[in-house]
Amino acid sequence: MLSPFADDTLASGKMEDVMQGLQLRSLVKESGELELSLQRVDTPEPKDDEVMIRVEGTPINPSDIGLLTGPADMAHAKASGSKDSPVVSAPIPQNLMRAMAPRIGQSMPVGNEGAGTVIKAGKNAQNLMGKKVAAIGGAMYSQYRTVRAADCLVLPEGASAKDGASCFVNPLTALAMVATMRMEGHKALAHTAAASNLGQMLVKICLKDGVPLVNIVRKPDQAALLKDIGAKYVCDSSSPNFFEDLTSALVATNATIAFDAIGGGRLGSQILTAMEIAANKNATSYSRYGSTTFKQLYIYGALDTSPTELVRSFGFSWSVAGFLLTPFLQKIGPEEGAKLRARVAAELKTTFASHYSHTISLAEALDLNVMSAYLKRATGDKYLIDPNKGV
Amino acid sequence: MLSPFADDTLASGKMEDVMQGLQLRSLVKESGELELSLQRVDTPEPKDDEVMIRVEGTPINPSDIGLLTGPADMAHAKASGSKDSPVVSAPIPQNLMRAMAPRIGQSMPVGNEGAGTVIKAGKNAQNLMGKKVAAIGGAMYSQYRTVRAADCLVLPEGASAKDGASCFVNPLTALAMVATMRMEGHKALAHTAAASNLGQMLVKICLKDGVPLVNIVRKPDQAALLKDIGAKYVCDSSSPNFFEDLTSALVATNATIAFDAIGGGRLGSQILTAMEIAANKNATSYSRYGSTTFKQLYIYGALDTSPTELVRSFGFSWSVAGFLLTPFLQKIGPEEGAKLRARVAAELKTTFASHYSHTISLAEALDLNVMSAYLKRATGDKYLIDPNKGV
Repeated sequence: MLSPFADDTLASGKMEDVMQGLQLRSLVKESGELELSLQRVDTPEPKDDEVMIRVEGTPINPSDIGLLTGPADMAHAKASGSKDSPVVSAPIPQNLMRAMAPRIGQSMPVGNEGAGTVIKAGKNAQNLMGKKVAAIGGAMYSQYRTVRAADCLVLPEGASAKDGASCFVNPLTALAMVATMRMEGHKALAHTAAASNLGQMLVKICLKDGVPLVNIVRKPDQAALLKDIGAKYVCDSSSPNFFEDLTSALVATNATIAFDAIGGGRLGSQILTAMEIAANKNATSYSRYGSTTFKQLYIYGALDTSPTELVRSFGFSWSVAGFLLTPFLQKIGPEEGAKLRARVAAELKTTFASHYSHTISLAEALDLNVMSAYLKRATGDKYLIDPNKGV
Repeated sequence: MLSPFADDTLASGKMEDVMQGLQLRSLVKESGELELSLQRVDTPEPKDDEVMIRVEGTPINPSDIGLLTGPADMAHAKASGSKDSPVVSAPIPQNLMRAMAPRIGQSMPVGNEGAGTVIKAGKNAQNLMGKKVAAIGGAMYSQYRTVRAADCLVLPEGASAKDGASCFVNPLTALAMVATMRMEGHKALAHTAAASNLGQMLVKICLKDGVPLVNIVRKPDQAALLKDIGAKYVCDSSSPNFFEDLTSALVATNATIAFDAIGGGRLGSQILTAMEIAANKNATSYSRYGSTTFKQLYIYGALDTSPTELVRSFGFSWSVAGFLLTPFLQKIGPEEGAKLRARVAAELKTTFASHYSHTISLAEALDLNVMSAYLKRATGDKYLIDPNKGV
């Protein structure tokens, strides 16, 4: 068993400012093999404007899994190493290796965001010493992480690291959807995989802000969950009346922008088609090119990695595009971004509350059974890593 | 045989200002049947700011065929009526009737653009009397057409109606592509079905303006045709090296925007993938979300009406959208639009020269054999209707 940091630093006889800690790494080898492991790494000493965080909660988001396992075939993953120092290997299909070229041979840290306690602070960041903070910036699947003080969000009084672990990706993405809807001139929006953690936040934001929202889910119990938290329009794609329900909801709300976490298959195309039918309900004359109502579908996830199929029966006034948080934040600039972050902090335990079904250690994150559970990305199954658990 | 307009007006004993003429009509019936016919209609007398054109050339563009036959199954079309007054009927598949709702029961005139001689002019448009002009505005598959003088483009000295028949749709769309490339910050562009009439114009525009252009064609003889008129990058999708050729051309040109006339299948997706590979050739670090280079695919046609399949191996920085000329012209405004039209007039016999393989009458346009030929929309087979031929 690995000893806690303080003892470890002392026991190792190193200079007291070298803090070692475990870090989860993902490596794509030239041979076409993915290797996941835990490395013992030095944590950089904070500079004047930096702090060192003991990470106590970091979520496994779909956006993390992209970097963690990449396109590897995890059904054929193999475990090796020891319980405390596990190694997982998996083959990467040859045709998918081309896209891996830029990362071959680089052992990469993982984990977009997390929260914990500031245990060291540079001279200009002493006010953060001992505070619970959240941070975004990668490599959060680490025991310790040094970041810029300016990149930390101080959690409100009484909030735990678990409360603050998912402060950025889901809350800011949900806020970005509503902001994008407004910036691009739409009046209402639609969302798929709507019972997700992010989807529940979006329901609460839209209720609070009076924005009509059409929620699309895949199962009746997901529909019930959203109805319970106040969602007005919920369409279940497993229902035989799905397309009619969706069209009615789009007619009622005038939603002409949708955010899709699924990506593959024909759901996005169905949404655009239903939007077109809704637009034509009010059309007074026939246009050979379809309605002039502009319909936007943003794909922000890849729960289904199969091809997106567009059955183009929705005219020519449409766009399907990728959507990512970082370019959105760059577009709105730091001032607007700060406003969004302040809202997340203010509503951390209400609008932006996250629920985790499991809290696991770094070693458990590389346990094949645990992995096969969280890689399913099932709605309601949300994993939190506590990198200081069990070490 | 139908008599020419002058005799007809006199012989019919009607007031001399009622000009009758043949007009091609397309009707979708409630029963799910398409009916094409020739109607004898009154041509509205020109108001003060209008002129009446005797239409002498009007092309059959893919954009016209959308309105002409809609989604009807033309393989099962039947002819009736007489030689001079033909009627064509064809069934519309039931599942495609929903999109037809706004036009059911309306007998619609066809034909986006054309050219001819001004035979009557309102008091403020007397300067156009007797001139050869081109016009856009629908219903050009008519013997006579009354339009606003401001919507006419006076053809340069010596140009025939045939020279001016395709003054708008193809030339302005080709110019719109280059303008859109510039407006959206791209430096080079790619184009599919590139040996089309429009594609040849685009080659000439890009050569003249020094814009790198990647031409994608489907046959070796189309590639040869484009090379003959000076195209530098031509990729033949029937070649086994197509994807490598395309990627090399995109690396060489840095084209990050493409205009696709085909729509269906995976070609658009291949273009985006090749653009992503080209972008990554210069990448210095790995991004789990793909390159940050924004890649744009515009679909402006539907030569293949099957679903568009996007194999999303090109990150999240991309957009696929419909593209139409009219919203583009609205976006740039009348002043910029006038500049584009002036360029078309100035280069009518060079950059914007159109070639027609057949000139047919309105009655021939409803001949089943002729129809099956022009509905193929084969590159190199371009049909011009002369509505005053044979009447």
